[in-house]
Amino acid sequence: HLIIARTPDAPPGVKGISLFLASKFEIKDDGSLGSRNDFRAGSIEHKLGIHGSPTCVMLYEDAQAELVGELGQGLPHMFVMMNAARLQVGVQGVAIAERAFQQALAFSQERKQGRTVWEADGMIYGHPDVRRMLMLMKAKIEAARAICLTTGVLSDLARLAASDEERAAAKARQELLTPIAKAWSTDVGVEVASLGVQVHGGMGFIEETGAAQHYRDARIAPIYEGTNGIQAIDLVGRKVGMEDGGVMRALCAELALTAESLTEVPDLAAVGRRLAAGVAALERATDWLLANRGADSLAAATPYLKLAGDVIGGAMLGRQALAAAGSDDPWMKSKGALARVYSSQVLSLAPGLADGLMDGALDMEATSAAALAP
Amino acid sequence: HLIIARTPDAPPGVKGISLFLASKFEIKDDGSLGSRNDFRAGSIEHKLGIHGSPTCVMLYEDAQAELVGELGQGLPHMFVMMNAARLQVGVQGVAIAERAFQQALAFSQERKQGRTVWEADGMIYGHPDVRRMLMLMKAKIEAARAICLTTGVLSDLARLAASDEERAAAKARQELLTPIAKAWSTDVGVEVASLGVQVHGGMGFIEETGAAQHYRDARIAPIYEGTNGIQAIDLVGRKVGMEDGGVMRALCAELALTAESLTEVPDLAAVGRRLAAGVAALERATDWLLANRGADSLAAATPYLKLAGDVIGGAMLGRQALAAAGSDDPWMKSKGALARVYSSQVLSLAPGLADGLMDGALDMEATSAAALAP
Repeated sequence: HLIIARTPDAPPGVKGISLFLASKFEIKDDGSLGSRNDFRAGSIEHKLGIHGSPTCVMLYEDAQAELVGELGQGLPHMFVMMNAARLQVGVQGVAIAERAFQQALAFSQERKQGRTVWEADGMIYGHPDVRRMLMLMKAKIEAARAICLTTGVLSDLARLAASDEERAAAKARQELLTPIAKAWSTDVGVEVASLGVQVHGGMGFIEETGAAQHYRDARIAPIYEGTNGIQAIDLVGRKVGMEDGGVMRALCAELALTAESLTEVPDLAAVGRRLAAGVAALERATDWLLANRGADSLAAATPYLKLAGDVIGGAMLGRQALAAAGSDDPWMKSKGALARVYSSQVLSLAPGLADGLMDGALDMEATSAAALAP
Repeated sequence: HLIIARTPDAPPGVKGISLFLASKFEIKDDGSLGSRNDFRAGSIEHKLGIHGSPTCVMLYEDAQAELVGELGQGLPHMFVMMNAARLQVGVQGVAIAERAFQQALAFSQERKQGRTVWEADGMIYGHPDVRRMLMLMKAKIEAARAICLTTGVLSDLARLAASDEERAAAKARQELLTPIAKAWSTDVGVEVASLGVQVHGGMGFIEETGAAQHYRDARIAPIYEGTNGIQAIDLVGRKVGMEDGGVMRALCAELALTAESLTEVPDLAAVGRRLAAGVAALERATDWLLANRGADSLAAATPYLKLAGDVIGGAMLGRQALAAAGSDDPWMKSKGALARVYSSQVLSLAPGLADGLMDGALDMEATSAAALAP
């Protein structure tokens, strides 16, 4: 396993930290295994979830380890992993949400309860409120998946695109989207897993059903590899300001084009209108952020990231709906339905989110912890 | 314990169900205890939370039990408990949220991490994003508590007010607010408990910290005593329609007066404006619901309940802020700050919520489970 540790004569602070690889057994020059390396796991933490991935205090006595990379460069080396991990954790949010959705969808087709108003063989899939939850789950998953896949494609283009300009543009867009891919997708993971529990009703609270495990497992993703609050600060503190806001503005201009295309398709015109209002809200909030640095923007960081994810995700669902428009295939037709449901339940909130994030910092700064105590 | 069971010659269906009380030991005529009653717990369920309240299959062999109330009236008798329980479960949401908040607030004053921009002895309470979470938690708790307390007062007035008219009005208002008190407060419980985990960062995911337990325990409250989806259907299917919508409209008129009063206080004018927009949104959504019964309103039920809770809760925070206006006491001043933070983060979304809930049912009805499958 990898370890970050300090060498005996290392300077104080982060410059003294190096990266090491410790193997469980000594590996001899001829490749055969020697004696057991002298480390062991101390207490294993009792965690809310991800029990397949134990977290423990490690105790090292006379353990041997190989230096990885350069001495004193432990943190930069670790960030090679951390940077890739942000997107990967976003994908983890999508993955847990997808599993929670599949399980809830299956349950909704097997479970009878009450008189349903829509045709579903009398199963709870026929209850409008259950179907609303399932379609919202699916729409958010598809939006988060599209954001993560787009970020992944951009990371390839940043290395492999034909020209310097294309590589630089892809790199900038990738850097902008990475905190959104991480934070927005993992928030979606928690929200969808919670909806999955709700679709199951009382059965969802019983561990054997499995829905509760997704709810527990999903909760780590907004925390590790940089909490979602840290991602939001990265977004407003560094990413939005790139090229004086040019990277974000260029993205918004593309989203506005998608909104325009949607408006021209009768079945998708309402999605286009709500997306256009959402993009305008994101642009307003971006202008405000660029004009209000410091504590104001830090207090607004999380709502701003949510706004950005909501709008970008909506545009991606809109593009999917445009690509599927005109098809009679039920799965293709669901793309339009999902974009419409998302636009009414999520995009409709974007103007209010933008309006609301622009104030609050003054009150937050002025309120002492003592004033909030019971 | 209480049991509902069927007597040997009972008619089929719910009319055959009676309510019984089984004591653990036989109680003799002189009050002394006799032999052990012949029932025992079978398998205990493994639940996500509330482990202090075991759920199990009960096995009865030759058990004795006393009839409670009338034969065949088991369900109506049980609903005496169920009706009171809805408000009590709402209070449970508030209680878990309050505990999660207190723990997170304490942690935020003991934990150092990163360079803070606001004064808090270097503790994470000085991070704007952490303070935003804590103030949002507190504001939502205070709103939910006010809704639950108001519902409780109304249930007293429904029995004890001086005149028939006052009792009838209190009863109608109580019936309107009960599903909101239950569903909105328990959704707040889950949301606040999740924010409590987030304030703790990685420590929040470790069970020993305690934050995770609130997140697990809170999750049952939106499910039991009628899921929040059932509460929403009760609200749109029965409560909003009372007196042709008159009960809800009368409440909205009162909320609008609060908005007006707020607008006249300089520090609270923005709260008043957002509350007025929220009340107008709630009135629009109410008119739409009254004109669109059936599946349309069922598909809109949960967003409508959220809208109603958001706006009513905001008005109650507004009234608290009005009562505290002008005071220099830090706790009293926090009332204004909480109302403002709530208005920017929650009330600002009300117009979008109202707009969005009015469509979606057509797409939901048309989308088969097969079309949503992966």
